[in-house]
Amino acid sequence: MTLKLYVDRMSQACREVIIFCKVNGIDFEEVRIDLSKRQQLSPEYREINPIQQIPAIVDGSFKLSESHAILRYLTCAYPGIADHWYPADLYKRAKVESMLDWHRTTFPRGPGSYFFYAVFASAVGRPLNAKAAARTEKNLIAALAKIESVWLQKKGRFLLGSNQPSIADLSLACEVMQLEGLDEKEHERILGPFKRVLKWLDDTKNAMAPHFEEVQSTVSKAKEKLQKQRNAAGSNTTQSGRKPVLHSKI
Amino acid sequence: MTLKLYVDRMSQACREVIIFCKVNGIDFEEVRIDLSKRQQLSPEYREINPIQQIPAIVDGSFKLSESHAILRYLTCAYPGIADHWYPADLYKRAKVESMLDWHRTTFPRGPGSYFFYAVFASAVGRPLNAKAAARTEKNLIAALAKIESVWLQKKGRFLLGSNQPSIADLSLACEVMQLEGLDEKEHERILGPFKRVLKWLDDTKNAMAPHFEEVQSTVSKAKEKLQKQRNAAGSNTTQSGRKPVLHSKI
Repeated sequence: MTLKLYVDRMSQACREVIIFCKVNGIDFEEVRIDLSKRQQLSPEYREINPIQQIPAIVDGSFKLSESHAILRYLTCAYPGIADHWYPADLYKRAKVESMLDWHRTTFPRGPGSYFFYAVFASAVGRPLNAKAAARTEKNLIAALAKIESVWLQKKGRFLLGSNQPSIADLSLACEVMQLEGLDEKEHERILGPFKRVLKWLDDTKNAMAPHFEEVQSTVSKAKEKLQKQRNAAGSNTTQSGRKPVLHSKI
Repeated sequence: MTLKLYVDRMSQACREVIIFCKVNGIDFEEVRIDLSKRQQLSPEYREINPIQQIPAIVDGSFKLSESHAILRYLTCAYPGIADHWYPADLYKRAKVESMLDWHRTTFPRGPGSYFFYAVFASAVGRPLNAKAAARTEKNLIAALAKIESVWLQKKGRFLLGSNQPSIADLSLACEVMQLEGLDEKEHERILGPFKRVLKWLDDTKNAMAPHFEEVQSTVSKAKEKLQKQRNAAGSNTTQSGRKPVLHSKI
């Protein structure tokens, strides 16, 4: 039976699972759970994932949620996945785990709030909030500084000095690339100082071409669509009549 | 060479690593990194963990940070650790991973802020903040409700319906038991409605007796010490002269 992914490409956690499957030739059926319609809260989806979040997978009779857990599972459950994604070696794997866990202990706090208030809110029908974004920006900058100075090293193109990407590269790159929802000037202001991070994002995208860019394009398409809606509704108001509080977003 | 743990027992993430080692008879040296003195930011500790957070371990020449990554590593690196802590079976392990990741995607947001503002702040020299705690309380309650109704099941005393604890039980129990820093009335108000959670906390404590309670006692001792300081300083002011904004805390 084909693997089913319950996802919305507007979510970076969903994008990482879709990209992984595509890059590794895992056949799957994509079932859209539309966040803007709050479909993750429907009784039908509750049967798939009682936690009512996406992504989730159903593989035969096996149900699983949480993107990092899904990535780990897929590397082990499907044959022929290259070792660099989730190394079997005890020490290498432990370092990938440390990277994955740092991502999870760090990003849901400040940076996650920044992404929500500066980029993502409008896509799920909530207002953007420049004040709240500004309040959490310093956490995002601190997290980017740690990626630049600790997790990326002089040797190796990928996290932890590796020459090939792991699931930690894929997941963290999807997280950081939510910033593509910002307009160019803001994107440059936030990410510009982090040269290694920018190069690593490019390297990760290229290592997973063309799938990374294809799946990630949801963000730029949504940004363009919103911009068009705004232009059509008048120069300084959103469709709902609210003044936009940040330049341009997805 | 003996395993070194860089920890402060005031941190729940550190307590889970210490308890795991004690319960499983892993010999270790405990190196205190005093959070109240911000020793995690010292140049010496930076050499151990450039991310400047605790816990971290040094095992021979191998350095590792992030408590979940450390727990996973210890279950594999040390001989004779029972399988239930981190099952080798693909499907059972994936479920434990899902639980660990849910903990990390859920608790750093609202519940983590609640613990900080209502319980932990005074222990690291910052003021408690009843308003901020109240704002994040609903996230904590929602998380407890998910543990009660989804992760704990009718069958089995532990998470995911297991009869023996995994590293996910240990870690999440340490997280939730930060609430022991609250006074009894507040503790009852928050946790009282969650009967399964209360029973699971007891079962987890008992399964890891006497080590769980011994390590966890740091929280109650700190609470008592702070209470005495307050009593000595006068009925309604803290040592710093600030009015306490919540009843009694660690």
